Amino acid sequence: MTTNSSPQLWLYDTTLRDGTQREGLSVSIEDKLRIARRLDQLGIPFIEGGWPGANPKDVQFFWQLQEDPLKQAEIVAFCSTRRPNTNAATEPMLQDILAAGTRWVTIFGKSWDLHVTTGLKTTLEENLAMIGDTIEYLRSQGRRIIYDAEHWFDGYKHNPDYALQTLDAAIASGAEWLVLCDTNGGTLPHEISQIVQDVSSHLSLVISQEPMTKDKGQRTIPQIGIHTHNDSEMAVANAIAAVMAGAKMVQGTINGYGERCGNANLCSLIPNLQLKAGYSCITEDQLTQLTEASRFVSEVVNLAPDEHAPFVGRSAFAHKGGIHVSAVERNPLTYEHIQPEQVGNRRRIVISEQSGLSNVLAKARSFGIELDQQKAEAREILQRLKDLESEGFQFEAAEASFVLLMHEALGGRQKFFEVKGFQVHCDLIEGKETSNALATVKLAVDGKNILEAAEGNGPVAALDAALRKALVNFYPQIATFDLTDYKVRILNGHTGTAAKTRVLVESGNGRQRWTTVGVSTNILEASYQAVVEGLEYGLLLHSQAEAAVKASS
Amino acid sequence: MTTNSSPQLWLYDTTLRDGTQREGLSVSIEDKLRIARRLDQLGIPFIEGGWPGANPKDVQFFWQLQEDPLKQAEIVAFCSTRRPNTNAATEPMLQDILAAGTRWVTIFGKSWDLHVTTGLKTTLEENLAMIGDTIEYLRSQGRRIIYDAEHWFDGYKHNPDYALQTLDAAIASGAEWLVLCDTNGGTLPHEISQIVQDVSSHLSLVISQEPMTKDKGQRTIPQIGIHTHNDSEMAVANAIAAVMAGAKMVQGTINGYGERCGNANLCSLIPNLQLKAGYSCITEDQLTQLTEASRFVSEVVNLAPDEHAPFVGRSAFAHKGGIHVSAVERNPLTYEHIQPEQVGNRRRIVISEQSGLSNVLAKARSFGIELDQQKAEAREILQRLKDLESEGFQFEAAEASFVLLMHEALGGRQKFFEVKGFQVHCDLIEGKETSNALATVKLAVDGKNILEAAEGNGPVAALDAALRKALVNFYPQIATFDLTDYKVRILNGHTGTAAKTRVLVESGNGRQRWTTVGVSTNILEASYQAVVEGLEYGLLLHSQAEAAVKASS
Repeated sequence: MTTNSSPQLWLYDTTLRDGTQREGLSVSIEDKLRIARRLDQLGIPFIEGGWPGANPKDVQFFWQLQEDPLKQAEIVAFCSTRRPNTNAATEPMLQDILAAGTRWVTIFGKSWDLHVTTGLKTTLEENLAMIGDTIEYLRSQGRRIIYDAEHWFDGYKHNPDYALQTLDAAIASGAEWLVLCDTNGGTLPHEISQIVQDVSSHLSLVISQEPMTKDKGQRTIPQIGIHTHNDSEMAVANAIAAVMAGAKMVQGTINGYGERCGNANLCSLIPNLQLKAGYSCITEDQLTQLTEASRFVSEVVNLAPDEHAPFVGRSAFAHKGGIHVSAVERNPLTYEHIQPEQVGNRRRIVISEQSGLSNVLAKARSFGIELDQQKAEAREILQRLKDLESEGFQFEAAEASFVLLMHEALGGRQKFFEVKGFQVHCDLIEGKETSNALATVKLAVDGKNILEAAEGNGPVAALDAALRKALVNFYPQIATFDLTDYKVRILNGHTGTAAKTRVLVESGNGRQRWTTVGVSTNILEASYQAVVEGLEYGLLLHSQAEAAVKASS
Repeated sequence: MTTNSSPQLWLYDTTLRDGTQREGLSVSIEDKLRIARRLDQLGIPFIEGGWPGANPKDVQFFWQLQEDPLKQAEIVAFCSTRRPNTNAATEPMLQDILAAGTRWVTIFGKSWDLHVTTGLKTTLEENLAMIGDTIEYLRSQGRRIIYDAEHWFDGYKHNPDYALQTLDAAIASGAEWLVLCDTNGGTLPHEISQIVQDVSSHLSLVISQEPMTKDKGQRTIPQIGIHTHNDSEMAVANAIAAVMAGAKMVQGTINGYGERCGNANLCSLIPNLQLKAGYSCITEDQLTQLTEASRFVSEVVNLAPDEHAPFVGRSAFAHKGGIHVSAVERNPLTYEHIQPEQVGNRRRIVISEQSGLSNVLAKARSFGIELDQQKAEAREILQRLKDLESEGFQFEAAEASFVLLMHEALGGRQKFFEVKGFQVHCDLIEGKETSNALATVKLAVDGKNILEAAEGNGPVAALDAALRKALVNFYPQIATFDLTDYKVRILNGHTGTAAKTRVLVESGNGRQRWTTVGVSTNILEASYQAVVEGLEYGLLLHSQAEAAVKASS
């Protein structure tokens, strides 16, 4: 931990490890790095990055972070205890952990006797040695240890003595955190409360009786953490019950992603702990970034955001029906449990449109455009924005398209080119290797008509190639533009192929990147909109840069 | 209540009233009736049907149920207290309530002084009269009353004396249930606990002091109910805290549908209360219908089911990763908090690149295919699986494609049809309203060549339409197939349009749904693969069903 003032609670994010266990979710190394850096910004002190011994991709992930470290968060490598009847020092998996080069390591071990005998197929004694040896070894190599007591609550209920022995092994070998995991997700809050209190008492007893570690008399007094799952829809409630019973670390994931029914949702936990229960986790300012962080992560992993999510969901502060509306605006706390701005969300009045104006003004300002709140333009932009958003456009993730929209409303949208039409033709003959697509585009530049055709490995690739081919003679800088990312989301997929498609296209020119959006029931048309706006914005940036150079010379 | 043995807890469903407040949800009268009858079957004792005074559709809904009543559940009409300074007997809204002809009525009233003065704009005294008059009037007309104390917890925290006075008004006029509502959804479990205990104590005091009603000395001893919202992700935990503090009625909705972040989810509440906390709500047999009821309701309201929902979600008992699988099968309770069958769900072993051989065997078994672990086929299937997954296919989410893969490896993949080729042509002329796509497909069925063309609002829609058009004469059952969902994932989007595309298509035949996958750099080709396999799998299901019928006759 570096610059944050001492938090009363320590947040531990496992989106990149436990979160990725969610069925259907898979992330690239690049995705993981982007998420890690965003969580770093959010002020999360511990970020569990993955299991390098089990996942080759994770090895690369940790190496990249050694080259270009996070600013304040500790990145943590995760691993199991050594295998039965082996030597920790020669366990290859632990070598991978050390190679990850993290200051902190999380080791998980078995707390439930049944898992030891039937799962690991070893003795209860050997399991204790596995826990102790693994932690001691890693500490001898300079690592600080967080110990995850797997299946803690079920294990404790079945055989409390043995469970406590496993914890003692972790304590004696110098673990700094003892994280009690409700791995099956079936425990209820009052049970969590009781058991955490028991552990707390046990800990006090153990500490009072002997030195914690064998290191030159240095006492490590471990603290209690909690790691819950949502199989009973209790993950958040359980975590809070644990905190109120003495836990000082809370493990969870952004948006509650995780296996089966998910992990404890940090997007619900942090505001509850900070705004209601009076704990300190991240700064107030960081808390206002919560909603954006939630949506960012869902975008990166390409999952639709949960609109009904507590605190950060689009509908979380949406008031339907006439009765409330004026009442809410006069005295929000009579209808809202917190102020949406505190978590970076906003109130939405489903009928009226006044609440959005300040957003538009702020956004415009961030692009160097000062809008006069009184003038019609500002309201026009807002109206256009809302109209488009109700059709499915989303400008949160496509700021370049929003900038073009503003320029249009202000009357200053430069016409670099005009697309008159396109045709795309795809062929697939069974037996032939691949299909190819042919696109023809008709443009007008400075009143001159151009017709150009190109091939591509798919209809969008062909369209993109044809547009560039047509434009590069007029705008040579287009040769430096690249389509760097392409995302598709089906907006009402349950209507099958009649669904609207939203396409986000990220373009770059080697120095900057920008994202544009297109929406249509026709995926090609949606792609074409986003691609065309991508080119337009790139040209806009270029002309602005040229103007700046001229102005300064 | 008629035939159920006395439940210790009373479930109260408000899916059809509060649930319909969910943004984007709207139901027809027919939909509501179908849901009501299903909830009746499930054993829910109270079903809140709507607000006939506010919603004309609801008037019809209640009339239909008078013609054709539910079997065991009480259908309840919902309404506010009379307006300030009016007469309950002449309040038109209350006439609508009476016309609904229900035995039970739920009346909601204000508990928070602020809401009375700034919202209703009346005096604190008048509000008490509104509560008392409304209940007395409806009772005089033979109705039994449930009183919903709106904004109870916030109101009690701000002005406990006044809040209790509002409750006293309800008690004195003969309400049988006092339902404490956490309308803003911001209360935490320990607060719920404390406040419910306070109310319980207050209730005992009031009862001991005087007769409850003015009716011929008949004492009505009201019981406490709880109605929670999920704005803090605590709705279920709060409801359970209330029950443990003495509440005997729990209000919620199926799948947690409701305004903003939703209501307490009955699909989590009922199993928690019944299987863990030892209460009795519905019969064991009815509980096994829970998963089906959950999916039925989501189908009727046309919302995608939440696959990660606790207890009833498709992923709730899905185990990923080789480690667990054998352990789970040997001793399920070491990895599962309840037996999935108890709520009508089932365990799923997820097939993914992390799968070992045991996953493949278990999966095959679940489709009725016994693979010999020793034989080459099993290993072949695993290898084919890993090869395809490294190319981008994902079988976790596309089980139907995996089944076809297995049949292929075992040499039994039926050839229903053969696609010889397709052509897709899209036009977009600037200025024209929308683009249209035209697809031509060439198939062979039983050696006969077919050429068919169709239009669609996009290339995939056109392709899908053309395939069906070609096949329906040979396989009439195809008319019952529907594309119900369509997902696109760009696999290495940072390479722009050269990226591989993975398409997941979900199809249904009215009774079952299945998902298939396609991968290609060409989005059309990927879509075509998934669509073709979707049709193939549907035909396979149909032929298996026919064979089963023949075998049993």
